[in-house]
Amino acid sequence: MARNIKNLVSQMTLQEKAGLCSGLDFWHLKGVERLGIPSIMVTDGPHGLRKQRTGADHLGLFDSVPATCFPSAAGLASTWNKELLEQVGEALGEECQAEDVAVLLGPGANIKRSPLCGRNFEYFSEDPYLSAEMAASHIKGVQRQGVGTSLKHFAVNNQEHRRMSTNAVVDERTLREIYLASFENAVKKAQPWTVMCAYNKVNGEFASENTTLLTDVLRDEWGFEGFVVSDWGAVNERVAGLKAGLELEMPSSAGIGENKIIEAVQNGELSEETLNTAVERLLTIIFMAVDNKKENADYDKEAHHQLARKVAGESMVLLKNEGDVLPLAKKGTIAVIGAFAKQPRFQGGGSSHIQPTKLDDTVVEIEKSAGKQAKVLYAQGYRLETDAIDETLLEEAKRAAVEADTTVVFAGLPDRYESEGYDRNHLQIPENQRMMIEKIAEVQPNVVVVLSNGAPVEMPWLSKVKGVLEGYLGGQAGGGAVADLLFGDVNPSGKLAETFPVKLSDNPSYLFFPGEGDKVEYKEGIFVGYRYYDTKEVEPLFPFGYGLSYTSFDYSNLQVDKHSIKDTDEVTVRVTVKNTGARAGKEVVQLYVRDVESSVVRPVKELKGFEKVTLQPGEEKTVAFTLDKRAFAYYNVEMQDWHAETGEFELLVGKSSREIILRGKITVESTAAVCKKVHRNTTVGDVMSNPALAEQGAHLIKQLTKGSPIFDTGDDHEKGSEMMEAMLRYMPLRALVNFSGGAVTEEKLTEVINKLNGTE
Amino acid sequence: MARNIKNLVSQMTLQEKAGLCSGLDFWHLKGVERLGIPSIMVTDGPHGLRKQRTGADHLGLFDSVPATCFPSAAGLASTWNKELLEQVGEALGEECQAEDVAVLLGPGANIKRSPLCGRNFEYFSEDPYLSAEMAASHIKGVQRQGVGTSLKHFAVNNQEHRRMSTNAVVDERTLREIYLASFENAVKKAQPWTVMCAYNKVNGEFASENTTLLTDVLRDEWGFEGFVVSDWGAVNERVAGLKAGLELEMPSSAGIGENKIIEAVQNGELSEETLNTAVERLLTIIFMAVDNKKENADYDKEAHHQLARKVAGESMVLLKNEGDVLPLAKKGTIAVIGAFAKQPRFQGGGSSHIQPTKLDDTVVEIEKSAGKQAKVLYAQGYRLETDAIDETLLEEAKRAAVEADTTVVFAGLPDRYESEGYDRNHLQIPENQRMMIEKIAEVQPNVVVVLSNGAPVEMPWLSKVKGVLEGYLGGQAGGGAVADLLFGDVNPSGKLAETFPVKLSDNPSYLFFPGEGDKVEYKEGIFVGYRYYDTKEVEPLFPFGYGLSYTSFDYSNLQVDKHSIKDTDEVTVRVTVKNTGARAGKEVVQLYVRDVESSVVRPVKELKGFEKVTLQPGEEKTVAFTLDKRAFAYYNVEMQDWHAETGEFELLVGKSSREIILRGKITVESTAAVCKKVHRNTTVGDVMSNPALAEQGAHLIKQLTKGSPIFDTGDDHEKGSEMMEAMLRYMPLRALVNFSGGAVTEEKLTEVINKLNGTE
Repeated sequence: MARNIKNLVSQMTLQEKAGLCSGLDFWHLKGVERLGIPSIMVTDGPHGLRKQRTGADHLGLFDSVPATCFPSAAGLASTWNKELLEQVGEALGEECQAEDVAVLLGPGANIKRSPLCGRNFEYFSEDPYLSAEMAASHIKGVQRQGVGTSLKHFAVNNQEHRRMSTNAVVDERTLREIYLASFENAVKKAQPWTVMCAYNKVNGEFASENTTLLTDVLRDEWGFEGFVVSDWGAVNERVAGLKAGLELEMPSSAGIGENKIIEAVQNGELSEETLNTAVERLLTIIFMAVDNKKENADYDKEAHHQLARKVAGESMVLLKNEGDVLPLAKKGTIAVIGAFAKQPRFQGGGSSHIQPTKLDDTVVEIEKSAGKQAKVLYAQGYRLETDAIDETLLEEAKRAAVEADTTVVFAGLPDRYESEGYDRNHLQIPENQRMMIEKIAEVQPNVVVVLSNGAPVEMPWLSKVKGVLEGYLGGQAGGGAVADLLFGDVNPSGKLAETFPVKLSDNPSYLFFPGEGDKVEYKEGIFVGYRYYDTKEVEPLFPFGYGLSYTSFDYSNLQVDKHSIKDTDEVTVRVTVKNTGARAGKEVVQLYVRDVESSVVRPVKELKGFEKVTLQPGEEKTVAFTLDKRAFAYYNVEMQDWHAETGEFELLVGKSSREIILRGKITVESTAAVCKKVHRNTTVGDVMSNPALAEQGAHLIKQLTKGSPIFDTGDDHEKGSEMMEAMLRYMPLRALVNFSGGAVTEEKLTEVINKLNGTE
Repeated sequence: MARNIKNLVSQMTLQEKAGLCSGLDFWHLKGVERLGIPSIMVTDGPHGLRKQRTGADHLGLFDSVPATCFPSAAGLASTWNKELLEQVGEALGEECQAEDVAVLLGPGANIKRSPLCGRNFEYFSEDPYLSAEMAASHIKGVQRQGVGTSLKHFAVNNQEHRRMSTNAVVDERTLREIYLASFENAVKKAQPWTVMCAYNKVNGEFASENTTLLTDVLRDEWGFEGFVVSDWGAVNERVAGLKAGLELEMPSSAGIGENKIIEAVQNGELSEETLNTAVERLLTIIFMAVDNKKENADYDKEAHHQLARKVAGESMVLLKNEGDVLPLAKKGTIAVIGAFAKQPRFQGGGSSHIQPTKLDDTVVEIEKSAGKQAKVLYAQGYRLETDAIDETLLEEAKRAAVEADTTVVFAGLPDRYESEGYDRNHLQIPENQRMMIEKIAEVQPNVVVVLSNGAPVEMPWLSKVKGVLEGYLGGQAGGGAVADLLFGDVNPSGKLAETFPVKLSDNPSYLFFPGEGDKVEYKEGIFVGYRYYDTKEVEPLFPFGYGLSYTSFDYSNLQVDKHSIKDTDEVTVRVTVKNTGARAGKEVVQLYVRDVESSVVRPVKELKGFEKVTLQPGEEKTVAFTLDKRAFAYYNVEMQDWHAETGEFELLVGKSSREIILRGKITVESTAAVCKKVHRNTTVGDVMSNPALAEQGAHLIKQLTKGSPIFDTGDDHEKGSEMMEAMLRYMPLRALVNFSGGAVTEEKLTEVINKLNGTE
């Protein structure tokens, strides 16, 4: 329905306009009845709807309307499946329509800087390319249903520790290449209706009043068209926020925020035009919701549960499978051990915590999948509410393990270990679980560990077990998905979207996380995740992009359609993938780019493309990737632009960041004009290595130093010439004065510099 | 002789005064004959005198008057012997007196940030405490002879790459704790006559015109009384330099520098008072040299050679001695292999390169030490001028090795690999040497490698040899010292003053060294050397402080004389060390301090004391260390002061940074008043955890949030309380407005903040 938003704004009073810029309560925007502006509802969260029941507590964390709980983002990203993410988004959108929710508060696209971050389960990846692709697919899916999303938490909210007051100090290149890039394609490709600003400060300014982030980058550069909403309680100074580009304060500040806006307009501190623009943006989205509202919408709970099972099956990552201990045979005795098998940890704690429509009992699902030929034993093994070892439960578990042919141990992080709101300070699972795994492994040779956790854990017991399945937080159908994978009814195809370190101190942010007082410096810069492990040659426990299958895949016939391109061109990379095993399966083909030589420090490789393909036994398919300038570029702070330097790049196609199978090459020619002015402190070497200056420079420097006892050596080079050459190479032109014994004067120097600059 | 310097300055013309502020030529200051101000001479370098012959090239790198070549600083520091360093200084001072040199241009106290730095051989350590102690001892020794020193290169000159133009970006805490601390005690304890400023920029300003460094820190804080001289060619803008505290420009700028000064005084840009002060400082030192000049001074060349041998013997570090392959028996057949045994690399390249008075032939020295019972074979093995393998030489070497009972292989870095002027870009020794070690090890079980190098190398062959002696650059008597050590005539007592990494990429600066263009960011911060390896749990090849002996030492009876101190007190730590072996030996007892809990990130340990003790077999001695506030403090940037936080500290006494034998404890109470003002963004947690505010804060916050549907929960806590508690803990006071449903107003909030600040 076409509306004249500007006209509507013009009919609103100052009070009405200011009022629209903060919430009605915790979950609703204000409406203006007399003008037909409705009050719309927004709710958490990215992997399932958390709509507060009427009359519940304000946050409503534990009393919400039932909704389908999909795997949380850590798992979703591990599918590396863009289509599947869209399907999840569509299902979430359907549920929003059914519950009369206009905007779903997600997805979260913050980078996993440290595995300690308590909210990592809600984020996709340590890699901005993968993260942005996943976020874009999620948003597309939800919004296809006529429901908005809120891409969050913009930006650099990579920890819970002091999240509302800490100042994240990040250099601009890192910000661009890592922390903003993780949002950039999600905005550009999927245009979320809203973006949620983060709690923290970014380089000294609260994200909620950061003009660079909210206006210069988000709107002017990326073309964002929706409105920005504060994270709940993120507003510091309301008027500063509005000026910076924060349209909506949530939750309600009980009139305080709007009064400040009114006062500011009245005393001239804030132009009414700025307020009008904000209100236009709010109304545009409000009416987009209204216009897309489906009356009497409903959804098929069972179908959504089945989708959740399918997604969970693709989200889990098979990390170890020694001697093909998996898949399990559907016969013999299988011991299932661990409280998590009965009380699954299927979602994370905090604002995304929802009430599922139903919840799989993993033991029951395993029994169903195992069939009648098999006997399934269950033992609790440990208690979830404590780290203390319960000897009775442990002995019982050992007895079950001894009795079985194979033992599946469920372990991981209990709720109290990991949540929105606070960070972990170590990567260990509880002592009673660790001990149980080791004790079981002593009495049973075929142990498979299934992990429930939102982020990496250390695995000191890894060598003692044959199989490890990373289940992440698998949603309400996680139990069924585990059963599907354990017995091979589904072939594992998840790949890690983050590096699992051997030990916490291996993480690049270790020395600088979570900062000191209210300041956290991102000193590791662009070296986040595998960018660090690979470049620093630190062996991970499991690398980024890694995950096993029950079948095998061969890669062949890498084709790069051009030998060389300009940075304004595109290149297409093709590779053939074949399923060489006996089972159908899915493979995630990953394309990394390496800059062979660079004037700046770059990671040894960066993900620039991926495709998930389904292959029957013996089947082969060709996968194609198209790369543009951005795939080769770094962010050049001086140029304030992405810069693909002229030179050779390697195209690395592999099964993980550490398992590159095929390598191609391409030469990229930069069309950017890099013109460096010569000055007193330009080095002799820089003049001589600049093709545009070398010949003239050599001539001029020779003239300049004529008669100098050091530089005018004729053919009689001093011994130790490497040192003398280096000295000259690194010497600023102005220092020739000191080393020429009077041969170079300031006047001569200025003359030469002007000649080199062509400004004489 | 008492002089009235001020009076003398008042008699000088502007031209004379400005003239005095830059050199006469490459190596002399100007004099003023009419006023009896003589022209004094300065010369390189820290481990031996490089006095240019008359008529030689200006730099005189390869044509200087013979002088004793002591081990370079990398070796000197490995002695950990302060007295011995003073003796070396005294000998250097004697030689200066004999050669009429007024100021010796050294020592160098820059930190070994990266093992790649081409000039590391001239620097002492990766640890500022050790470095400053070594520099102080060196300076004391030289100056005791009435000769000045020039502590260099001040500051943050930790690479040769673009050293004359690069900008070293270092945060203030790192600057203070690491890069300035390495100079600080040398200035405070030994008062060098001169300090040489570095080539590079520090945080955007050339060191040569950096007021913070040259005046605020060096003079005002540390009490430096001498003059500052530029590194040769380090002057950028002469007048800016003079204002910042750079008194002397070297070498001569052929009148340019002084003309700029004259002009600046004349046009009022520079006050004549500033110039007068600079001239006073110059004259003070010039006359100090004059007054301390010893007429007809001479020195005993043979005695200095013997001292060089003794020092070299303490400077070499026994890194590996499997199965006690060393010391060698003085019988049987010993193969000596490697060109370095005949053409020793005994010093580094660049400005410190000197002409030795004599030079040991290592093979001859080994023959002498081995005595008549032993047969010594020599084979060249490889050629020094190339990395290519010479099969003939290799075969010859293998034949010698096969024939021998033990083989000593000499390997390391040729001159072309390592020098002032440029940095290495890898840590490998030449391919022909590496190959030779491996081939020899295949045919000979008892291989000992003796290394000649100025900085660490990777040792992929380490497991294949039984012994490794790190010889560093051992000076002119290095050959004799190696013989002394190999046969046990001297018991090794050197300890590494730097970490040897397994591989280059393990180094903390790896990702950021040597920077991009003219900017190098010290992003690893305070985590330099073992501070990084220990805190990040990266296993080094050989740790800081490590070195073997032919005897063994036991540590016992650690005594800390107080249980707790104020930060204004001192504490004494005593430990008993016993020689439990059969040979006399020397042990370096090392004391590290660990802050058990800190509000800022700190290394897991830092060196705060060391003593070298000589012990006969069975003998024991008690070593005492006195620690003051500084031993427990970090540099608090907010307080602009060293801050020892209240709390417990561990006192770790050991044989190396990784071999701590005894642990003590002490509680330190800070007397610093840390008073944090409460503001809108102070978190609830910070109020509650502040003992001065907690009680009042709890009361006020309770009052404030009374009636809030979230916080006024009475006893009925919401489920998931960890998250709710964390949320409240990290919540800024101003956010209570949003979460109180109107219960908290801005007025109430301001009132509470004022009450907490006591400013109501």
